[in-house]
Amino acid sequence: PAKQRTGWEIKASALSLNTHNRIRNIVEAMQIKPNPNKAMIPLSIGDPTTFGNLKAADETMKAVLRSLESGKFNGYAHTQGHETSRQAVAKYSAHQRPEGVIDPSDVLLCSGCSSALEYCILALADRGQNVLVPRPGFCLYHTLAEGLDIEVRYYELLPEQKWRADLVQLESLIDKNTAALLINNPSNPCGSVYDEAHLQQLVAICERHYIPIIADEIYEHFVFPGSRHVAVSSVTREVPVLSCGGLTKRFLVPGWRMGWIIVHDQHQRLGTAVTGLKNMCGRILGSNTIIQGALPDILTKTPQCYFDRVIETLYSNAQLAYKMLKQVRGLNPVMPNGAMYMMIGLSKEHFSAFKDDTHFVQELVNEQSVFCLPGSCFAYPGYLRIVLTVPSAMLEEACVRIAEFCYTHYKKDNRALIEDRLLED
Amino acid sequence: PAKQRTGWEIKASALSLNTHNRIRNIVEAMQIKPNPNKAMIPLSIGDPTTFGNLKAADETMKAVLRSLESGKFNGYAHTQGHETSRQAVAKYSAHQRPEGVIDPSDVLLCSGCSSALEYCILALADRGQNVLVPRPGFCLYHTLAEGLDIEVRYYELLPEQKWRADLVQLESLIDKNTAALLINNPSNPCGSVYDEAHLQQLVAICERHYIPIIADEIYEHFVFPGSRHVAVSSVTREVPVLSCGGLTKRFLVPGWRMGWIIVHDQHQRLGTAVTGLKNMCGRILGSNTIIQGALPDILTKTPQCYFDRVIETLYSNAQLAYKMLKQVRGLNPVMPNGAMYMMIGLSKEHFSAFKDDTHFVQELVNEQSVFCLPGSCFAYPGYLRIVLTVPSAMLEEACVRIAEFCYTHYKKDNRALIEDRLLED
Ligand SMILES: Cc1ncc(COP(=O)(O)O)c(C=O)c1O
Ligand SMILES: Cc1ncc(COP(=O)(O)O)c(C=O)c1O
Repeated sequence: PAKQRTGWEIKASALSLNTHNRIRNIVEAMQIKPNPNKAMIPLSIGDPTTFGNLKAADETMKAVLRSLESGKFNGYAHTQGHETSRQAVAKYSAHQRPEGVIDPSDVLLCSGCSSALEYCILALADRGQNVLVPRPGFCLYHTLAEGLDIEVRYYELLPEQKWRADLVQLESLIDKNTAALLINNPSNPCGSVYDEAHLQQLVAICERHYIPIIADEIYEHFVFPGSRHVAVSSVTREVPVLSCGGLTKRFLVPGWRMGWIIVHDQHQRLGTAVTGLKNMCGRILGSNTIIQGALPDILTKTPQCYFDRVIETLYSNAQLAYKMLKQVRGLNPVMPNGAMYMMIGLSKEHFSAFKDDTHFVQELVNEQSVFCLPGSCFAYPGYLRIVLTVPSAMLEEACVRIAEFCYTHYKKDNRALIEDRLLED
Repeated sequence: PAKQRTGWEIKASALSLNTHNRIRNIVEAMQIKPNPNKAMIPLSIGDPTTFGNLKAADETMKAVLRSLESGKFNGYAHTQGHETSRQAVAKYSAHQRPEGVIDPSDVLLCSGCSSALEYCILALADRGQNVLVPRPGFCLYHTLAEGLDIEVRYYELLPEQKWRADLVQLESLIDKNTAALLINNPSNPCGSVYDEAHLQQLVAICERHYIPIIADEIYEHFVFPGSRHVAVSSVTREVPVLSCGGLTKRFLVPGWRMGWIIVHDQHQRLGTAVTGLKNMCGRILGSNTIIQGALPDILTKTPQCYFDRVIETLYSNAQLAYKMLKQVRGLNPVMPNGAMYMMIGLSKEHFSAFKDDTHFVQELVNEQSVFCLPGSCFAYPGYLRIVLTVPSAMLEEACVRIAEFCYTHYKKDNRALIEDRLLED
């Protein structure tokens, strides 16, 4: 072969081409033409600030204002983030440790939780290794890993068991090349919140197989009355945990891109991986310094009543949607305990007019102008995911329309049809 | 081999371990103990805001204030950045196109120029391919590429020719696996500013070999009186150029992490690489939205007199340091035409007490408490790099101390010594 090129033949790298956004791919392949007679209701958007009903707290905003006006936070920060900002995160996250104390050097500030997850996966897993991720699960894990030839192996969550992991199936996936178990608790898209007992079971598997945990805890504290968030790192001293969090959801500021990694590794079992993580932070120098400067105040001065009110809104939306959709024949909503989503099972045999969940979603938009995400976006066909962050009147209207749609397309199964006919006769 | 692990053996990924920060590695290996009798003067820090003499413009700060107070920029932006923000960058950068018009869809906002560079390199180059980068040059290129097994090949800049590239040597590096030529203009660490003729020469090579250009133009417009910044994309319609820029340097806000990529590709020769670039932006969802919201005002309302004043400061510092150090035997400063740095050659034979530039820098700190970066940090031993952003009194004092240090350690060469002796006799 010639040593030189003889024409333009630029190609994208495999990494960049294999950085797929599954949601975008699926949504773009749909043929969507919303019903012009009905206003569009998007129950698809994972941005809680979209509708204006959920806003960042005044105290959060003021903290940023002060940080900006101080003029002290325009310069570069330390690669891991400003010391005082990391101190604030360490304090805020103290409950994640059995002993209740975190050293600021164990905190790494990142550009959003996405970046935190990217660094954890990329620092732990080499090409050809695998990471266990939940199904249904947030598609970013796949997006981040696949381009680097890191295999993603799905462990199954069981809807009938509050979306707990199928432990036997999970354990069967593990081999010498398993670099990490990724746990997303509370979960997107399930809205599930694991109790301590289940976390212990997951930790026990990791301990048995010497596998570190990446905990996506971006919905930490985002739990409904009756549930309690337990950080997986707080139930083990044996298994190293990289906890990924941030301001994004709880503080309702996704655009600010403030995320973090907290390294829990009592016995220094992560070895060189901690250096690896810190190296990764040096690639792009993390997160905006104005927000870093505001972190100490954001984390201490945003009042509990603010969080309570947000949770209240989400919880009452969850109850509303659950109650309404539970009554719809062919739908099987699973009541969430946290986060901002609800999964709804579709009874395939009763909606046989639709090829799959994606087709169902497409026709639902086209007839009713209600847009949900198909479970396929979360590697879980046969379900819909709705968001609970829309204004409740909108949610109610959406549920009415979904019910109408289901009523129109619901097909009784053959036996029922025969029985009906017999009765009618 | 057993299918399962039998003990803890977590290892960092090759990517994370090979994400080296050369500056940090070199600096940390030094044995530094500044002279306690002299106040430390760091001429090493690439953060222009460190000393308080250079500050962001009021207009820049106010634009962010308005963006924050609008409450409209807390949500997620489009993967590439908000449309209006990209429009603003497109307008601001219109001079980069021969025809003077850029479409906002050709703009991708990123988390700092670092992230822009990361995406360009990673989207264009596959494992085993190579990217041509300047020597001396900014070490981040290496940091970003090496972990992904993308080879970095150095083309030489010639200090005696205003740091122009050695075109013959550059061309000799090119083969079928050359994915891009990276041009950093104005340059860190050289402070050089290329004229149109030299850019044309570089473009001609790329055209001959069908190689796209990654242009690191973060110091765009940061040029001293008498020089003019020419964007490499403005001198070609044939060679695709990915221009990386941002607010960092010119607006003196490095911590804000606002960078961008502008795709110049008149003949669509980048092919799938544009999709690849956009995919990359989906990994961590770019830059802080408050700053995005402020971009239109920052880019149009920051007054020219502000930029002029900053340039004036840097230029007069450059003149001061050049004039003082030029007189020091054994030093060979190269007058910069832009950016914020000056390179100073060390006459090896006259400083034979020192093993190399790193050793020289170490002893300079230990005796005089003046800290420069050794050229080795930029793959260019035998030089020092100083920053021009410190207050001028501090710079003057630093130059006096450097002169004193050189005077103490300067060794005449043998012939000169002999001649001296003969004269004395
Ligand atoms: C489970 C989960 N993890 C991580 C993220 C990303 O968070 P961030 O916006 O902070 O990058 C999301 C966002 O939707 C999420 O749902
Ligand atoms: C040549 C060059 N490119 C890129 C960067 C990084 O810019 P940013 O801070 O916007 O990531 C720097 C910073 O020093 C630089 O000198």
